Amino acid sequence: MSELKFTVQSLEERLAVGPFNRWLGFKVLHMSQDSLELKATWREDWVVNPDRRYTHGGILAAIIDVAADYAIAIHLGRPVPTIDIRVDYHKAAMPGDLVAKAKVIRHGSQYSTAEAFVYDTQGALVASGRGTYFTAPPAPAKVASA
Amino acid sequence: MSELKFTVQSLEERLAVGPFNRWLGFKVLHMSQDSLELKATWREDWVVNPDRRYTHGGILAAIIDVAADYAIAIHLGRPVPTIDIRVDYHKAAMPGDLVAKAKVIRHGSQYSTAEAFVYDTQGALVASGRGTYFTAPPAPAKVASA
Amino acid sequence: MSELKFTVQSLEERLAVGPFNRWLGFKVLHMSQDSLELKATWREDWVVNPDRRYTHGGILAAIIDVAADYAIAIHLGRPVPTIDIRVDYHKAAMPGDLVAKAKVIRHGSQYSTAEAFVYDTQGALVASGRGTYFTAPPAPAKVASA
Amino acid sequence: MSELKFTVQSLEERLAVGPFNRWLGFKVLHMSQDSLELKATWREDWVVNPDRRYTHGGILAAIIDVAADYAIAIHLGRPVPTIDIRVDYHKAAMPGDLVAKAKVIRHGSQYSTAEAFVYDTQGALVASGRGTYFTAPPAPAKVASA
Repeated sequence: MSELKFTVQSLEERLAVGPFNRWLGFKVLHMSQDSLELKATWREDWVVNPDRRYTHGGILAAIIDVAADYAIAIHLGRPVPTIDIRVDYHKAAMPGDLVAKAKVIRHGSQYSTAEAFVYDTQGALVASGRGTYFTAPPAPAKVASA
Repeated sequence: MSELKFTVQSLEERLAVGPFNRWLGFKVLHMSQDSLELKATWREDWVVNPDRRYTHGGILAAIIDVAADYAIAIHLGRPVPTIDIRVDYHKAAMPGDLVAKAKVIRHGSQYSTAEAFVYDTQGALVASGRGTYFTAPPAPAKVASA
Repeated sequence: MSELKFTVQSLEERLAVGPFNRWLGFKVLHMSQDSLELKATWREDWVVNPDRRYTHGGILAAIIDVAADYAIAIHLGRPVPTIDIRVDYHKAAMPGDLVAKAKVIRHGSQYSTAEAFVYDTQGALVASGRGTYFTAPPAPAKVASA
Repeated sequence: MSELKFTVQSLEERLAVGPFNRWLGFKVLHMSQDSLELKATWREDWVVNPDRRYTHGGILAAIIDVAADYAIAIHLGRPVPTIDIRVDYHKAAMPGDLVAKAKVIRHGSQYSTAEAFVYDTQGALVASGRGTYFTAPPAPAKVASA
């Protein structure tokens, strides 16, 4: 029914607008109505444990938040403020790029829910989660933190 | 009953071991049995929205995870793997250092729960959340992502 | 600044309007601006495990949701739709009434966050959690599930 | 690879052991390795709002917790203690039986994650969520609240 509000290129450009999303090195691998596949580009700064060198849980949380948020953005035409997120950690994410697959669980006129699953380069699930996003039409001045 | 397993200095050193926690610029402001106050040092890379310049929700999630985790570490003598976290976003975090106040909700022999509240430089609450941590004695080889 | 929108008696009456809250046997123990203490009255139907006889996690989730919701209601004058909740289980809740202590974390014009801690008759913490509630002014026809 | 540890009949019997699950009227509609479909049988006591007569969010949380837990039980041979849950409310659940579809997200030796989606009799999604469960081998004396 509704059409995509972004192309792969325009979504990637929108993602690259902010310094932190740029720092996470997002590439759009695939998108459709209500689903999105992003790649985040590994960097040494992500490491939490210098011996085992796995990625910090905060990085995984950020990737889940962004992927879920932009799965909604595809439909809505803009990223939206995050109300809250939950993240489950399943496995240490060893050095390497990460792929997030996100899907909208429910579109709402006031708030919406989306989920994302993060995989390592071997395709193993390392983390997953879901977020609630504020999708009411933007008011003149709105504070938020997506 | 039990004593602190870290001093302010040794906790700060432990935090600085990993690249991402170093990148977040943590300083220990205060610690006691079961509570911890950390400062994270703002950097331009944290910004998600270049116009309004507020901090990315993933950064706030990382700060909450670390503060809650290390509130447990004070008691246990080591940071622990994060099982899952929830983060609520209350207000846009404008440029400036952030202070996280964390507290253990319950110590368990297998898993423990801790919460953290994040404040901006004006003392306004910008985000809060809680995490569950895996606190069973470490096995020979353990995967996790704190 | 703002005054309480309920008395102990009117809040108890409001709680008793719905069959399930009546079934949970809520009594108001204490209330103030932004905090609420409720008692839920134990019944055999709550039991999940007939040998050990502890209370079902779903009952604890319901108590947390109601306590957090009504902590907001004190301020707002009406219970509000729940957007989402998180519940942490800390300890088996053995037969006996349960006391929930709830507090508003942040009042917002669109959505608000509150938390609740549930204690058994010995005062031990058995569960805790937090919820996000939809606090925008009610529209002509609104669907929700608080 | 591994076989089912329950049949539809033995799982239904296991569910009916506890008073609260009996009160929720669970029927097993479908089960496979790692997935489970349950029906909960509506009763007037579920209602939170006597005018609009929708079901209390605590009931939906209980259904999600049980469905996710027993999706793990199919694999493990026993229900497991719930560590924590998150529940998102999508739509008012009007009077009528509810169907929960649950799936294991990750099996772990210490803790596992599963999710569930709850639908009304028209097939509309009314709530969804996920839980973390304690799946370490049972110790001699274990406290928990699934």
